[in-house]
Amino acid sequence: MKLADVPTPALVVDRRALDHNIATMSDALPGPRLRPHVKAFKSTALARELADAGHRTFCCATIREVEGMAAAGLGEDLLLANEVLDCTRLGRIVDAGVARVTVAVDSPETVDAAAAGGVREVVVDVDVGLPRCGRDPADAADLAARARRRGLDVRGVMGYEGHLMRVPADEKPARVEAAMRVLLDAHAAVGGELISAGGTGTYAVNRWATEIQAGSYVLMDTEYVPHAPAFRCALGLWTTVISVSRKGWAVLDGGLKALSMDHGDPTVTEVGDCWFVSDEHTTVRTRPDRPVRVGERVRVLPAHVDPTVAQHERLYVVDGDEVTDIWPVDLRGW
Amino acid sequence: MKLADVPTPALVVDRRALDHNIATMSDALPGPRLRPHVKAFKSTALARELADAGHRTFCCATIREVEGMAAAGLGEDLLLANEVLDCTRLGRIVDAGVARVTVAVDSPETVDAAAAGGVREVVVDVDVGLPRCGRDPADAADLAARARRRGLDVRGVMGYEGHLMRVPADEKPARVEAAMRVLLDAHAAVGGELISAGGTGTYAVNRWATEIQAGSYVLMDTEYVPHAPAFRCALGLWTTVISVSRKGWAVLDGGLKALSMDHGDPTVTEVGDCWFVSDEHTTVRTRPDRPVRVGERVRVLPAHVDPTVAQHERLYVVDGDEVTDIWPVDLRGW
Repeated sequence: MKLADVPTPALVVDRRALDHNIATMSDALPGPRLRPHVKAFKSTALARELADAGHRTFCCATIREVEGMAAAGLGEDLLLANEVLDCTRLGRIVDAGVARVTVAVDSPETVDAAAAGGVREVVVDVDVGLPRCGRDPADAADLAARARRRGLDVRGVMGYEGHLMRVPADEKPARVEAAMRVLLDAHAAVGGELISAGGTGTYAVNRWATEIQAGSYVLMDTEYVPHAPAFRCALGLWTTVISVSRKGWAVLDGGLKALSMDHGDPTVTEVGDCWFVSDEHTTVRTRPDRPVRVGERVRVLPAHVDPTVAQHERLYVVDGDEVTDIWPVDLRGW
Repeated sequence: MKLADVPTPALVVDRRALDHNIATMSDALPGPRLRPHVKAFKSTALARELADAGHRTFCCATIREVEGMAAAGLGEDLLLANEVLDCTRLGRIVDAGVARVTVAVDSPETVDAAAAGGVREVVVDVDVGLPRCGRDPADAADLAARARRRGLDVRGVMGYEGHLMRVPADEKPARVEAAMRVLLDAHAAVGGELISAGGTGTYAVNRWATEIQAGSYVLMDTEYVPHAPAFRCALGLWTTVISVSRKGWAVLDGGLKALSMDHGDPTVTEVGDCWFVSDEHTTVRTRPDRPVRVGERVRVLPAHVDPTVAQHERLYVVDGDEVTDIWPVDLRGW
């Protein structure tokens, strides 16, 4: 199949950029030093590429992601790096013996849910400065004790310094160190072998975590590039020009239902600039010096990969003009 | 099934608000005066409710929507109100005799695609002021002539005044009239029985179109209410509080992958105010006077319904505390 024959709108993955990104990260963080986050691409086929590159421990953000990874035979060590109040489905996976499942806990309620649902291993999620999930560090030891009383194995701690992914490069090392000092103190109180943290924006400077939870680096997006310049944008939305106005605009057949807008407009370079995005359309201001033809194909770069991928059923992997693989986005939903 | 037992995150439809919205619009625009737009809810089960209310002509925005409506037996008169360069799949539906399919055209290329793909009926899409698809009105007659030369039946014109949905109420009638004058002039040149236009924001003042293409009114969203106050928000994201910080925030288990953000933040009322939204989380600033409990369920109102629904596999229809139906969102994708 040729790229020109891919029906639009469709997500296309540039094989060479993908290979560059995987190799670059594997060089920096080989094997279990990286725990790739599948939420960024939601595809077991792509996760298998990372396993082939030596990373066989994975992070998930949803129960569905854990179930899908387990069913795909990629369940050697799955960390659900998120809080869950009903762990029944996770417990079923553990009981079936098809995957090792660890879940994050940050409250008595989530500890009790893990125990009640049949999960046997947890990490204590620690607040390291991002206002989201995470236990107050001063209370981490108590929570670990509660988990152990409930019969859970506490594998260590995690703490996501998500608020530091986009700070200026000259401030980043010191601020990440300060956040990780909080996590290391909590770890000293909690115990266990895991200190899990980090992401694509901090992987290069986070020297304190035993493993980094990066995912965005695999496909990358326009918004993240300034904060992780070692990686290339590997994901594009492949569209068709369906209408051209002589008043100076053209319309692409991909819109809000194919592109997540929370990090801003997509980048259109070939035929003009993004003007606005509607449900099924992107209107592009055209340039007088660049004639645009109805039926022309245009690649658009999304501003935020993770929720964009979640809007699609499949990824077309492309090497030049050739489609080499079609990967189902099989980890969508919850 | 009780609402309390619905796994989160999940979209819930308030049956009473839905019934109010359907009845209000049916009173204003009975039967074929309304051509409901399925892009707003992407569910054949919900489309069937509208057919039961007397509306049996529908608008679609994608080929997949046309295919799904035809397969569900709702294909009495489907208008794909969008431009398509490959009409092969539409032609197959026409050949199978399972639906009447009309497609919008606004260029020689889209006319030729309709004829080549086996579609037999078109409307000329006219630019009435929204910078998106639509033929220059001066060229509408020529395009209709080309369509007829290619053996296509030209059923009339459509023109979407989407740029007027949110203008102040006192300006709206005059501006809609001006846009519709453009469409009526084009119709005089093109011929045919259809003058299809309008939406939820203009249905009450558009007296010129023979049919109105409204869809958002069915489920409604927070952003649209000021512009169409007859309707009620019927769609909520049902979430669970998965984490509470004593520093003044709580975290819900629904985020960017469950809520479209292109019209702004979701509205959280019960436990605090939306602070920010991440892939799988909404962080809420809590209020000192309102204790929040881990495990508590919270309903969040999305700012833009159409792309929010497209992120989900199903809609839970709820009457009070009771789940009365589960409707698949079966028209997703392209």
